Amino acid sequence: MGQNYKIIIEYDGTNYSGWQIQKNTRETIQQKLEDALTKINKQKVKVIGAGRTDAGVHAAGQTANFFLDVDIPAEKIPLALNSELPADIICKKAEKVSADFHSRYDARGKKYRYRILNSNFNSVFVRNFVYNVHKKLDVKLMQTAAKIFEGCHDFAAFCAAGSSVGSTVRHIYSLNLYAADNGEIWIDVIGNGFLYNMIRILAGTLIETGLKKRTLFELKNVLESCDRNNAGFTAPAQGLTLIEVFYD
Amino acid sequence: MGQNYKIIIEYDGTNYSGWQIQKNTRETIQQKLEDALTKINKQKVKVIGAGRTDAGVHAAGQTANFFLDVDIPAEKIPLALNSELPADIICKKAEKVSADFHSRYDARGKKYRYRILNSNFNSVFVRNFVYNVHKKLDVKLMQTAAKIFEGCHDFAAFCAAGSSVGSTVRHIYSLNLYAADNGEIWIDVIGNGFLYNMIRILAGTLIETGLKKRTLFELKNVLESCDRNNAGFTAPAQGLTLIEVFYD
Repeated sequence: MGQNYKIIIEYDGTNYSGWQIQKNTRETIQQKLEDALTKINKQKVKVIGAGRTDAGVHAAGQTANFFLDVDIPAEKIPLALNSELPADIICKKAEKVSADFHSRYDARGKKYRYRILNSNFNSVFVRNFVYNVHKKLDVKLMQTAAKIFEGCHDFAAFCAAGSSVGSTVRHIYSLNLYAADNGEIWIDVIGNGFLYNMIRILAGTLIETGLKKRTLFELKNVLESCDRNNAGFTAPAQGLTLIEVFYD
Repeated sequence: MGQNYKIIIEYDGTNYSGWQIQKNTRETIQQKLEDALTKINKQKVKVIGAGRTDAGVHAAGQTANFFLDVDIPAEKIPLALNSELPADIICKKAEKVSADFHSRYDARGKKYRYRILNSNFNSVFVRNFVYNVHKKLDVKLMQTAAKIFEGCHDFAAFCAAGSSVGSTVRHIYSLNLYAADNGEIWIDVIGNGFLYNMIRILAGTLIETGLKKRTLFELKNVLESCDRNNAGFTAPAQGLTLIEVFYD
């Protein structure tokens, strides 16, 4: 079975069809990692990711694990891997872990950030990593609204229609909004797990609140309705970044 | 002659052969602006830029001016222009100016920033806008070194070989180094004008100082020698951004 390695990776998802390997494209993060690792290992390597980020979604701290037949010191893995990977995927750290470590099953929680650029004009420097909202957002209102979603709730209203997942109950440990000087607004979400498109629908709903298209009172009803039709739009993938995956 | 307009533009220079229109490529910033403005004006427009940034160099506040035959309110120019420009060039601001305003001749100074990412690994989020130096730089030493170049000096040693410019005396009003939490080091230079590749050679020389390949004592001699061979390497274009152009 070989040695199990855990890695932390950063990627710019702009030019990828998401994390997961797909039939019709080789342009997935998982595929690029498996290609690079198979070269290093000289035998096929399967990579397990903590979370399947969608097309266009980025990661600053995605976590993955894989088994190698060759025994390589953990500290050599990032350099070896980065020399085979395209420039928009970077391995930051690697460590040897026990054979039973599984990056997805063992994950205790994840932190995502949704970046909004609230500005008349986009910025060429961050345009691939933010969603540019032109009209002025009421950040204070959004900060109050965010608190409604903290805690353990049935988030069925914030799950992409048509996805079947069993229970739609999830625990959001914290949902915080930060406004930076440069016009960026960050929506930071930490939770035990997320439904399909959940953070992007939460972001879209909070943006509609910040534009005063929705009242705080309404938001509680949206959550309780468990009906996707009542929540806001799905904010674009490019604004979303997986920041960190938590383990025991 | 029409109305003279002054604009502020931001661009990601990664995919361009620099500011200036060239015979063998249409991929220049000036060309893209002229194409967009000619569409709006329905007659050929010539764009004058404050500074001719090199291939791969970026701008947060490049300034340009041009004459339009059609009379458009200044506040409509950015939107009209941005709808014709590619996503990596953005007009942020426009104003009507008197016919004798010339963005290059009237410029009193410019501010450039050279961004270094001093980190074992590059970052996918800023990789096109920084120069990644892996080995640890001595920022304090670089800060002291930077002060040697402030003031009015003959910068012949910091001018790309083969360029003819007349006088090589330039006035650097300030040269400051800032270290940010995320591993970025910014070299901010304000001056009345710069020789060809001057800031990139200054950045390369300061980097060599930060790597302890050069002493502070040596740097004074390099400046006084007026010999390009004595200065450091030309740091890559991608780390350089034109921040602002100053006018009276």
